[in-house]
Amino acid sequence: MDRLWTNARIATMAGPGMGIVEHGAVAAKDGRIAWIGSAREAPSAVETIDCEGRWITPGLIDCHTHLVHGGDRAHEFELRLQGASYAEIARAGGGIVSTMRATRAAGEAELTASALPRLDALIAEGATTVEVKSGYGLSLDGELKMLRAARALGRERKVRIATTFLGAHALPPEYADDRAGYVDLVCETMIPAVAEAGLADAVDAFCENIGFTANETRRVFEAARAHGLRVKLHAEQLSNQHGAALAASHGALSADHLEYLDDAGIAAMAEAGTVATLLPGAFYFVRETRLPPVQALRDAGVPIALATDCNPGTSPLTSPLLVMNMAATLFRLTVEECLAGMTCEAARALGLHREIGTIEPGKSCDLAIWDVERPAELVYRMGLNPLHARIWKGQ
Amino acid sequence: MDRLWTNARIATMAGPGMGIVEHGAVAAKDGRIAWIGSAREAPSAVETIDCEGRWITPGLIDCHTHLVHGGDRAHEFELRLQGASYAEIARAGGGIVSTMRATRAAGEAELTASALPRLDALIAEGATTVEVKSGYGLSLDGELKMLRAARALGRERKVRIATTFLGAHALPPEYADDRAGYVDLVCETMIPAVAEAGLADAVDAFCENIGFTANETRRVFEAARAHGLRVKLHAEQLSNQHGAALAASHGALSADHLEYLDDAGIAAMAEAGTVATLLPGAFYFVRETRLPPVQALRDAGVPIALATDCNPGTSPLTSPLLVMNMAATLFRLTVEECLAGMTCEAARALGLHREIGTIEPGKSCDLAIWDVERPAELVYRMGLNPLHARIWKGQ
Ligand SMILES: [Zn+2]
Ligand SMILES: [Zn+2]
Repeated sequence: MDRLWTNARIATMAGPGMGIVEHGAVAAKDGRIAWIGSAREAPSAVETIDCEGRWITPGLIDCHTHLVHGGDRAHEFELRLQGASYAEIARAGGGIVSTMRATRAAGEAELTASALPRLDALIAEGATTVEVKSGYGLSLDGELKMLRAARALGRERKVRIATTFLGAHALPPEYADDRAGYVDLVCETMIPAVAEAGLADAVDAFCENIGFTANETRRVFEAARAHGLRVKLHAEQLSNQHGAALAASHGALSADHLEYLDDAGIAAMAEAGTVATLLPGAFYFVRETRLPPVQALRDAGVPIALATDCNPGTSPLTSPLLVMNMAATLFRLTVEECLAGMTCEAARALGLHREIGTIEPGKSCDLAIWDVERPAELVYRMGLNPLHARIWKGQ
Repeated sequence: MDRLWTNARIATMAGPGMGIVEHGAVAAKDGRIAWIGSAREAPSAVETIDCEGRWITPGLIDCHTHLVHGGDRAHEFELRLQGASYAEIARAGGGIVSTMRATRAAGEAELTASALPRLDALIAEGATTVEVKSGYGLSLDGELKMLRAARALGRERKVRIATTFLGAHALPPEYADDRAGYVDLVCETMIPAVAEAGLADAVDAFCENIGFTANETRRVFEAARAHGLRVKLHAEQLSNQHGAALAASHGALSADHLEYLDDAGIAAMAEAGTVATLLPGAFYFVRETRLPPVQALRDAGVPIALATDCNPGTSPLTSPLLVMNMAATLFRLTVEECLAGMTCEAARALGLHREIGTIEPGKSCDLAIWDVERPAELVYRMGLNPLHARIWKGQ
């Protein structure tokens, strides 16, 4: 073995429950978990690390972010608190179009650089895998630039970046009178180009009154699948568009947000194995009052993932620990569900559950080591970061 | 001048508004602010620091915390999420009595040491003054020990600690059948001893159905004032006990929480100059739905402070930045109100507004220097800490 972490308490997240191993040890070889079990039976290793009773969990996974974007929306936030109307904010240059403009204006290196502080905040709390979406370029060049900037993050830091193409995020102003033309561009030009360049691991869309219709979303999904890309969806955030069921019918990895999800959507997700990704930061930030149907998701056996939704408009959030606290406090998820939501179920939402998300032999050795007495502390506290060490690919 | 921070944008918080000085500079001499103004007119100094356009605000002030305490309540939080009843949690050793037991069992040095990570989290986000309450000892020795542990924090770190005696926080089990006896102990033994030892800067109480009555609170206030100590109050958190008006009638520095505050209480506070300290972390964590009367407080001209209320039962929060975000998001405070709440108004809530809270000549040179483009970013983001440097007493 290359390295052995011993004298640890381990939440493998491989079940049952949190898969707790007291007096445990984990060994890595060639960047992968090679052994996990009781410290007394641990194999020898070139390097042995005494964890002094600390807890080890899988490295955290943030499976839904818009980490790469130009500018911020702090001024818009300030104006809103002063009572400005949407029209006034639009006149002041606010809204998603302002992020689009700032993103289009930024160079690729600039986009990567501006995302690094946000990525570093996630990493500082134990994130080892982060999904990043495009969706503020809204042109072929802009979307490709965003995806390249996202991929570059994985070269700048020791972290796994999963990229998602979100061309169908908003209608850019130049297509205001030609919705079909923009959907054509997404399906016939952008998706083929993104697939050809190997720049996206999945394709997403924003199915909403203020986004794209179910029929437009279907076209995006069909184009994605024609190019061998898995799909996911921003669904049922502000209204019930039956997007989750549509996504499930296309074998979606996940449907995300879901405050307005209905029983038919839940049943379709359960049957398709589509993960429900809840985004409590957005729920909190936009002061949503409609709760996602957590108990119905549990009853149907739909896996529940959690993510920051880090984005400048509705969730300027870069704390995985706070996501878990919000999921517990606002959505009443249990501690186990919160941890699963940022580890094993988040891995499933990315289609990476064979590679990451639990501490099991064969998986990438991505670990977070915490200065806590029990896993519940990771969910209970707000603003205290007990991360002791973070291991990515065994290092 | 000893030191000069130049090429800065400064929010002095001395009015009007945020008291913004563009292209500004601040100079310190003997630990105090000696000059503030335009960078072009800045005096010379032994050391000059180029702030490269960063923003400077007063150091943040957390004016209501229970930072010193034994144990935590993470397990109780976990049980609650699993649906445990209050009776089950009490049987499992939960509730405030569990914190009292852990605090009584801990030595003074242990209490200080266990509070340091929480204090460090506040400091890491720019806090230069932190209030700390007693209230988990609930015996003469226990309360004195907590106050000494709190004072010791100020020797361990470069931070100003204000201590508050909160003997009337809860009825300890040994007085369960003798409420009057415990109030006697607080008023006739503890307050004189605390005053004699110079261990408290103020006296607080928890006026609530589950705490102390208005009449009991009045006795505590009278004892405090007889010993020359200013008062403050946990008031109207869960119900309207008319505590804020009672506090105002005793010239209270602040009344805190205030979700159930009524118009008469607001008027009394306005007349007495009592600060309204809002604690959005507790509001969020206990899922309160009744909002404090922010607009009525504004209309009456009551100063509004903000604090973490850091405590293990209802607000395990150690992020001043998150407090501001919660105050904006949940209570609709403006950016200016949020910053004032953690600077000048927090200083007022501690009776320290002549010493700290704004960037004005003569005050302690306590500064926070931020890597932001505008102050709104300090309120808008969640989980990203843009603190570039923190100055306490000119260092
Ligand atoms: Zn999103
Ligand atoms: Zn309190």
